[in-house]
Amino acid sequence: MPRMIDLLKHIEWVGDAATGHLRLLDQTLLPGEVAYLDCRDVEAVWRAIKRLSVRGAPAIGIAAAYGCVIGAQHGEFIKQADYLATSRPTAVNLFWAIDRMKLLGTDDPAQLLDEAKTIHAEDEAMCRAIGEHGLPLMPEGGGVLTHCNAGALATGGIGTATAPMYLAKERGVELAVFADETRPLLQGARLTAWELGRASVDVTLICDDMAATVMRQGKVNAVITGADRIAANGDAANKIGTYNLAVLAKHHGLPFYVAAPSSTFDLSLSTGDDIPIEQRAADEIISGFGPATAPVDVKTFNPAFDVTPAELITALVTERGVIEPVTTDRVAAVIGAAQASSPKPQASK
Amino acid sequence: MPRMIDLLKHIEWVGDAATGHLRLLDQTLLPGEVAYLDCRDVEAVWRAIKRLSVRGAPAIGIAAAYGCVIGAQHGEFIKQADYLATSRPTAVNLFWAIDRMKLLGTDDPAQLLDEAKTIHAEDEAMCRAIGEHGLPLMPEGGGVLTHCNAGALATGGIGTATAPMYLAKERGVELAVFADETRPLLQGARLTAWELGRASVDVTLICDDMAATVMRQGKVNAVITGADRIAANGDAANKIGTYNLAVLAKHHGLPFYVAAPSSTFDLSLSTGDDIPIEQRAADEIISGFGPATAPVDVKTFNPAFDVTPAELITALVTERGVIEPVTTDRVAAVIGAAQASSPKPQASK
Repeated sequence: MPRMIDLLKHIEWVGDAATGHLRLLDQTLLPGEVAYLDCRDVEAVWRAIKRLSVRGAPAIGIAAAYGCVIGAQHGEFIKQADYLATSRPTAVNLFWAIDRMKLLGTDDPAQLLDEAKTIHAEDEAMCRAIGEHGLPLMPEGGGVLTHCNAGALATGGIGTATAPMYLAKERGVELAVFADETRPLLQGARLTAWELGRASVDVTLICDDMAATVMRQGKVNAVITGADRIAANGDAANKIGTYNLAVLAKHHGLPFYVAAPSSTFDLSLSTGDDIPIEQRAADEIISGFGPATAPVDVKTFNPAFDVTPAELITALVTERGVIEPVTTDRVAAVIGAAQASSPKPQASK
Repeated sequence: MPRMIDLLKHIEWVGDAATGHLRLLDQTLLPGEVAYLDCRDVEAVWRAIKRLSVRGAPAIGIAAAYGCVIGAQHGEFIKQADYLATSRPTAVNLFWAIDRMKLLGTDDPAQLLDEAKTIHAEDEAMCRAIGEHGLPLMPEGGGVLTHCNAGALATGGIGTATAPMYLAKERGVELAVFADETRPLLQGARLTAWELGRASVDVTLICDDMAATVMRQGKVNAVITGADRIAANGDAANKIGTYNLAVLAKHHGLPFYVAAPSSTFDLSLSTGDDIPIEQRAADEIISGFGPATAPVDVKTFNPAFDVTPAELITALVTERGVIEPVTTDRVAAVIGAAQASSPKPQASK
């Protein structure tokens, strides 16, 4: 049996329910430093979420669930859970995880820790399932391009877009990964290149404006990204630059895949036009590397996300299976039933 | 009559031929600081070219021509001219300008200064001519996207890709410019956004991976870039990321223009496949602006240029006119005669 890939534990409960605590990798220090935050009170968890020490929709949800256990240790479960929910107001997974903890109807740390570990384990299993469905789509012996970080660092497992890459590594399937650096926040450079490299996945970092060239030169044969929110028709919002890649992939005749859990689908939105796009501050573009690299008063346009229309997406890869072609009917068939029967977090990184 | 746009003099001869000197804007300090290098010996000119204080093919040629005058002031014209030619071995304009100075057959500083000023003035006129041909192609009242810096800072005039933008400003033609920041070296952020902003051109800075979004949202209606080298069939090599934009423009039904002087054409190359592409160092991607923003040992792919195939170029805008459609025959008709009758520098930024 192939050896399981050895990923860093970036979210971990240390000790027992009564006296233990949450240990988080401080992602703000990557790639330069691997350091951990030992969170022994809810304030520390709140700050870790707020300052992006832990980020990625599933990872935030898991951290918040463990944070609830810490609140219960201090005899203030409900109060502290409500406080945790204010750490990142747009992170729907955060509310989902906290609500699920509350639904237990107990403030016993042991029972709450069991539930938090279940949420964590479910996410890990979800990642593996996405990997299993995605691996057959990967171009064995070829290259695959990804954008931003839809990786292990964003989840409780082997990531979403990265899941097929890690499974390929586990099973000896040859695959060269290209990672877009992903301006302005450089999640691809700081996080994806780091986590794949650490796991000995063959990864090459490029600037975002080199994507068309690696496609034209035949270095990549497919593209796979994550998603933050997917509409009922399959339109997918994801980190800015994803739509660029979808257009480039189409021009070069390459498949474009979006990997995301069923919880990412928001069937209340008929198309991606209904997905609101956050505009972010100019300083991310002007001085994101430290010193100002543009005139400090220059006008900028800095949308956090873009929307890739369904017709540019070859397939959506979920833990429930592959949705291909990407149509409202196919989305409903694979996702609709799942959403009718379970509470639904939505992604936000 | 509309007021001429007031551009900074970034290459200027100060004083007379016998005792004057060359003043260069130190572009390495932009956009943070406007400071000048007063070059009174050839060594200072050599260093300014070497360390990219002056860059852009036409600008390097002009600086080298003035450098020859300084050599003549010191009674060492030919020796110092040959030394200057070693400052940037791939800059064909450098050799072209120095050869032209030598062809005068004199070491009289006054005559050499006249020739250097002629080279400078010819370049200025070339930029204006490109602007005149390009302005009617600009989407009045709309937006145009550019990449890298094919601007005034790279030439002795109003630039190449920027020439229509400056003429639009002079003549009150409404035009919104979007500038790609242009990773890895950020020439768009550091130079293009700076020079356009300084001239009160309406400019908005974006990251390279936002280009498809500004197109899809209708913020830009055309793309115009410069070129480093154009083959006989119209294939154009330019800063990495240009080909990305050409593909995105095609998908969105937008015209894609390349503005370049006739000297940029290399009719000895039948297609762009014959254009060699320089690979640059990993540190430009990993730590180009100080702190490392990627794992220091990550593998990178960092081509300096890409090649945009002629079929993606709506028109080539030269000082001799617009080449449209872009075919070998049309290129030969507009460029062939010019190149047969004059020495030919080639661009390199």
